[in-house]
Amino acid sequence: MRSPIDDYLHQVLRDCRDDDAGDVMSGNRELERADPTSFGIALATVDGTVYTAGDADHEFSMQSIAKLPAYALALQDRGLDGVLDRVDTEPSGDAFNEISLEAETGRPRNALINAGAIAVHGMLDGDGATERVDRIVDLVSTLAGRKVSVDSEVHSAELASDDHNTALAYLLRSAGKLDYEPDEVVDGYAAQCAIKVSCRDLAVMGSVLANGGMSTTTDDERLLDGWITRHLLSVMATCGMYDGSGSWMARVGIPAKSGVSGAILGVLPGQVGVAVWSPRLDEQGNSVRGVAVFERLSRDMELHMMHVAPSGLPALRSVEERDGTTVVEVQGDVRFAGAEIIASRACEGFSTDTVILDLTQVRVMDDAARGLLREVASRLEENHDVHIEDPNELMDSGPDDRDTHNREK
Amino acid sequence: MRSPIDDYLHQVLRDCRDDDAGDVMSGNRELERADPTSFGIALATVDGTVYTAGDADHEFSMQSIAKLPAYALALQDRGLDGVLDRVDTEPSGDAFNEISLEAETGRPRNALINAGAIAVHGMLDGDGATERVDRIVDLVSTLAGRKVSVDSEVHSAELASDDHNTALAYLLRSAGKLDYEPDEVVDGYAAQCAIKVSCRDLAVMGSVLANGGMSTTTDDERLLDGWITRHLLSVMATCGMYDGSGSWMARVGIPAKSGVSGAILGVLPGQVGVAVWSPRLDEQGNSVRGVAVFERLSRDMELHMMHVAPSGLPALRSVEERDGTTVVEVQGDVRFAGAEIIASRACEGFSTDTVILDLTQVRVMDDAARGLLREVASRLEENHDVHIEDPNELMDSGPDDRDTHNREK
Amino acid sequence: MRSPIDDYLHQVLRDCRDDDAGDVMSGNRELERADPTSFGIALATVDGTVYTAGDADHEFSMQSIAKLPAYALALQDRGLDGVLDRVDTEPSGDAFNEISLEAETGRPRNALINAGAIAVHGMLDGDGATERVDRIVDLVSTLAGRKVSVDSEVHSAELASDDHNTALAYLLRSAGKLDYEPDEVVDGYAAQCAIKVSCRDLAVMGSVLANGGMSTTTDDERLLDGWITRHLLSVMATCGMYDGSGSWMARVGIPAKSGVSGAILGVLPGQVGVAVWSPRLDEQGNSVRGVAVFERLSRDMELHMMHVAPSGLPALRSVEERDGTTVVEVQGDVRFAGAEIIASRACEGFSTDTVILDLTQVRVMDDAARGLLREVASRLEENHDVHIEDPNELMDSGPDDRDTHNREK
Amino acid sequence: MRSPIDDYLHQVLRDCRDDDAGDVMSGNRELERADPTSFGIALATVDGTVYTAGDADHEFSMQSIAKLPAYALALQDRGLDGVLDRVDTEPSGDAFNEISLEAETGRPRNALINAGAIAVHGMLDGDGATERVDRIVDLVSTLAGRKVSVDSEVHSAELASDDHNTALAYLLRSAGKLDYEPDEVVDGYAAQCAIKVSCRDLAVMGSVLANGGMSTTTDDERLLDGWITRHLLSVMATCGMYDGSGSWMARVGIPAKSGVSGAILGVLPGQVGVAVWSPRLDEQGNSVRGVAVFERLSRDMELHMMHVAPSGLPALRSVEERDGTTVVEVQGDVRFAGAEIIASRACEGFSTDTVILDLTQVRVMDDAARGLLREVASRLEENHDVHIEDPNELMDSGPDDRDTHNREK
Repeated sequence: MRSPIDDYLHQVLRDCRDDDAGDVMSGNRELERADPTSFGIALATVDGTVYTAGDADHEFSMQSIAKLPAYALALQDRGLDGVLDRVDTEPSGDAFNEISLEAETGRPRNALINAGAIAVHGMLDGDGATERVDRIVDLVSTLAGRKVSVDSEVHSAELASDDHNTALAYLLRSAGKLDYEPDEVVDGYAAQCAIKVSCRDLAVMGSVLANGGMSTTTDDERLLDGWITRHLLSVMATCGMYDGSGSWMARVGIPAKSGVSGAILGVLPGQVGVAVWSPRLDEQGNSVRGVAVFERLSRDMELHMMHVAPSGLPALRSVEERDGTTVVEVQGDVRFAGAEIIASRACEGFSTDTVILDLTQVRVMDDAARGLLREVASRLEENHDVHIEDPNELMDSGPDDRDTHNREK
Repeated sequence: MRSPIDDYLHQVLRDCRDDDAGDVMSGNRELERADPTSFGIALATVDGTVYTAGDADHEFSMQSIAKLPAYALALQDRGLDGVLDRVDTEPSGDAFNEISLEAETGRPRNALINAGAIAVHGMLDGDGATERVDRIVDLVSTLAGRKVSVDSEVHSAELASDDHNTALAYLLRSAGKLDYEPDEVVDGYAAQCAIKVSCRDLAVMGSVLANGGMSTTTDDERLLDGWITRHLLSVMATCGMYDGSGSWMARVGIPAKSGVSGAILGVLPGQVGVAVWSPRLDEQGNSVRGVAVFERLSRDMELHMMHVAPSGLPALRSVEERDGTTVVEVQGDVRFAGAEIIASRACEGFSTDTVILDLTQVRVMDDAARGLLREVASRLEENHDVHIEDPNELMDSGPDDRDTHNREK
Repeated sequence: MRSPIDDYLHQVLRDCRDDDAGDVMSGNRELERADPTSFGIALATVDGTVYTAGDADHEFSMQSIAKLPAYALALQDRGLDGVLDRVDTEPSGDAFNEISLEAETGRPRNALINAGAIAVHGMLDGDGATERVDRIVDLVSTLAGRKVSVDSEVHSAELASDDHNTALAYLLRSAGKLDYEPDEVVDGYAAQCAIKVSCRDLAVMGSVLANGGMSTTTDDERLLDGWITRHLLSVMATCGMYDGSGSWMARVGIPAKSGVSGAILGVLPGQVGVAVWSPRLDEQGNSVRGVAVFERLSRDMELHMMHVAPSGLPALRSVEERDGTTVVEVQGDVRFAGAEIIASRACEGFSTDTVILDLTQVRVMDDAARGLLREVASRLEENHDVHIEDPNELMDSGPDDRDTHNREK
Repeated sequence: MRSPIDDYLHQVLRDCRDDDAGDVMSGNRELERADPTSFGIALATVDGTVYTAGDADHEFSMQSIAKLPAYALALQDRGLDGVLDRVDTEPSGDAFNEISLEAETGRPRNALINAGAIAVHGMLDGDGATERVDRIVDLVSTLAGRKVSVDSEVHSAELASDDHNTALAYLLRSAGKLDYEPDEVVDGYAAQCAIKVSCRDLAVMGSVLANGGMSTTTDDERLLDGWITRHLLSVMATCGMYDGSGSWMARVGIPAKSGVSGAILGVLPGQVGVAVWSPRLDEQGNSVRGVAVFERLSRDMELHMMHVAPSGLPALRSVEERDGTTVVEVQGDVRFAGAEIIASRACEGFSTDTVILDLTQVRVMDDAARGLLREVASRLEENHDVHIEDPNELMDSGPDDRDTHNREK
């Protein structure tokens, strides 16, 4: 059987290919060479499957999408507060004024505009531009599951048209937001923009963000701290599409980041990473076909953050009393709202001495739910003999494993 | 057994009560009278349970939170495009400049700043301020599940200090964004701000938004179109906390809206509506304790939009071959990502003539997943005899029921 | 002999008449009716001569030019500090954002943008709009030397399209910058805009400002305090042409104010008032032909504030010793720089017992020069017998007459 | 006799010395060393006299005041239009945002903010930074009448804290407003800021600007084109005191430019150049005592551009008929307004065959007046025998000498 998802992506590709509006990025001799008819789509699920259509394995430079892995490293190196000291997390509002330093603090408005991204690059640990760029390349390779590299032609072309970025770097240093030499930072920043990837790479990288930082291709391997992916997705949601971020959230509802090479990476938490690449850009610098594809996916596949699926079954599958024992069967994805239902039922009391909490059919459980269920069990134990059936060992993770604990450091 | 959630909320209340920073709203004689020590919390789940702590049943005026139901009505009356013609959906960026009309279009930046909310009020169908206000009161009553009303004292007090709003209304009419008489609109807008509610009311209202517009207290009753709730939540996510929206998304991650009476309403899609009320405000006009409570809930209960719970079980519970029949057992919440797994497995092919798709343990399914599974079944039927076990009738909803169909009208 | 100035103005009129770019003001039913081919020029000297060309006696509404007499009255009523409390004197910078209230103080940026002019109107003494408007009409009549009146048709038309001004008035009251009822102020402001004048009227009014507030048609009659005319001219110089004020100063160099009826009034201190009227406007709302005429006059007649005529003769005409008497002959316009020359020579000492300071040929002397010469005379008297020949009684004015004394009150 | 002007300046020095508010410029190791009690005043008239008080011969670096001679050279090198292509002439409005590039054109708002001054420096002809700086040093030397030089310590200190300027230079090049290497321009710009001058030097330089570009110390020597001085004074009038330019014009009325070394240079066209130096700065970066001195001078000496001295004598001294000849005696400063009076009288006609135009007592005549009087004479010659008595040869200058002719090139 041919996958209907494959068919769907190819259909979307055909439908959106007709749109030949927009122009390839100008002002950079390498980007100008891009074939305007190129068009690729890749979709990677948190379960590790990748679907592609068109030129999904063609390589292009990451450009602004490289701001995401660099931001992740800076958060790792400096912690959240250290990074917030230098770069805020607010939408910039202005399109034309890319400078957007806050009057009072001298901070760039966010890490996804150039000023912020340069400040972020300047916060990376590492001795010299090469070492810092290598770390970004390594992280992208890790996230994409494939060794990537910097395109030296694009890197050179970036450096040949980097006056604006050099200006930003000096401006940041004059505001006390940059420690390294501006020229070195601009060089490194140009290199990070020139990392070559394909739609497939970006989609897999997006799937790791969608999966809370856990690998989607290898088992149980954490590639990024949970608090970092959460922070990245938050900033993508409010600042990812420049001054059109609010409208993008309303229309598309997928946290995203675009690059002037014509790529857009979108991430729907818990579900998928999606990448589209087609070099013709609209006035905001976003890929024309890329935007069109995301609008289609959001609508057709209901891939919108604010989309709520109506409940079919309750988390509380059944409560049955047999032979002096009450069996409480839980099912589905158990987060706060699911655990609350169990707690709510437990408060009504059980007439039997023994209570079995059967988690066999639970698919997902987060720390908050786990903590709540432990508390429920503990209170029930005052009057009952409590057993937990937990073949998937969902209750075993301790608080030390919480991916959020780094958040406050 | 006493509910651990009740205990938790009371603990939060005790912890945050110590914070007596901030001041009660000044400049309005009724709001100034508020008891600064008041403090209530309410949390309502999509399953209809409401937890409360403190002064959760004390009434106060909705103030800016009333912008949400008014926006919902305007979307209903004019459709999305009709509303977008007059009010944009972008964060405003500026705190001090509450005027924020876009230079080119004359539109307010979004519907949750005063300028936008007044334009929104001016788009409501209805003959005169009273009729339009009655419609908002009715919607709030419906959403809260309790008959609410306008506090005439607060309404009068609003009108006594409405110069700024009157200015905005005239400005909007001069920009062609208001049809009714400005004074009448300001009167109606003042009345909507003065609708009396409790934390409990707001939390229940929030739970309906969290539930995609379906009632959380009565069965299967749609109170708001799905596309409207999705739009409201999107705008809350990017514009709900004025110029601090980006930071709120990163730190708290719950789409929210605050009011100067000291209330904050937060909504986590698919899970809960939360309301906190305490009249002392910070410099941005948000309740000091309200902010503190939301930060606690987000952290302790992992109620953050970008939080991803690690998977325990796959959506594909099992594939078993018995007596010439393959049984494909699906479980959990099935949205795009879940359906994709089934499709992916189906593509590998089955060796038996008969294939049973067993959805008995599926709790939630959305339209996209339903469509995908139908397509999978249809393709399998070319070579197999396919049966779907669907005791919860999840596959029965037709495309006509999709709550998104209104979105494009 | 026919006046070459008359001929010159007619030539300018012919040359600039060909320019039919721009459009008559829209959005006001009375202004829209204006004949786009109308074109008048008037030039009034401080000596009382008026030259005209074209439709110089045709009447039109003052529009924004009425901001000047209203500002003069407010300065009179409240004093400089009283007015500065509510309206600043800085260029606004922005064209599109006519609101321009200062973030910190809530003051409009200056009195010549609408927001500032409405605040100014609201500072006028007088019981009700009619009395306040009558005072402005009276002042314009006095300055123009002819009884003028409000055009009630234009007044009504203004009121029919006054939403933006009403917005500004409410905004000002909300910022504590307006005491009267906003609607009453807007009514009065609309009336002041509708005062009917001709180019001749404006030019004569301008000549009074050019003459330091003294009448140019009657002898020795002060119509405005000197400090008020100085303040008006200063603000016209930096804020009179909206966001093009800097460029206007550089290119034209004549403090000016334009109105959307198509008039521009320019004032060159000490020399002339010039008014041009032609209804077609450029994008900034200035009369296209009006701008062209001012550029011609500035260039051809060197009517530029920063134009410096090369000195021919020194202020010190001669120092001659005859019969034991030194005669110091002074000539020309004596201001600080002229008086300084006399003082400088006096410091060198005179060998005769008697010194005669001959001011017969002095044309102009200001208070500073007078004070300086008095001091020189007083010091010379220690060693000399000093006589002052002053047939024009230039040394008689006492400090009590200084027009600047009100400035500090 | 001791000069009362000397006495006056010393009195002002004593009165303003008490004010020890403000702080010496920080962030530059050389400027930080300045003695905060230093205080000098110098006043130079267009007639060549210089008055001083306090530390008027102490040297300090020009800082932003060097923007004026650099601007003059750029205007000379590129012409007005060439310079306007890259730098506008509008007040910037913003204090904090010193970047102020216009959204549409990418031009700095004016030449007296750093961004504009760097663009201006980048328009100077010359091979390398040294040659360009030498040209500025030469011009300052010429204008000040004394050989000045760059302070190499200050130059180095500037380069050690030039990140913000480097940013501006790169920003300008990225906007196509800079041809030279940014680093070279910043080096040159730092050197021009470090030119060492005294109050006396600045005052003499100012007197040349006040004198339309003619030397005030040597006879009949043109040091700057008239159109250039006029342009400089215009921009000083509207943009010289940053975002306080409007208020400065209203309160002080003297076109001025300040520098962070604590100097302020003011120029009153036709009268004087004034320089004050005292290193303590207010929040806007202007010398506290410098501002105080200018306010005193403006008030006491009526040195305000918009100050109009009341006329004593008419330009038309007498019209006498003797022996069949009419003698028309003209006196004082004859500019447009003066010439107009003669023309006006001539139009009334003369009854004698011979008319003598006696210009013996005319002190000043500009080109416009000269042209007008020639035209009057020419018309009179149709019916009269006309003689011009012009011992000062004021009528001899031809149109070729007009200092404005370069303006349009």
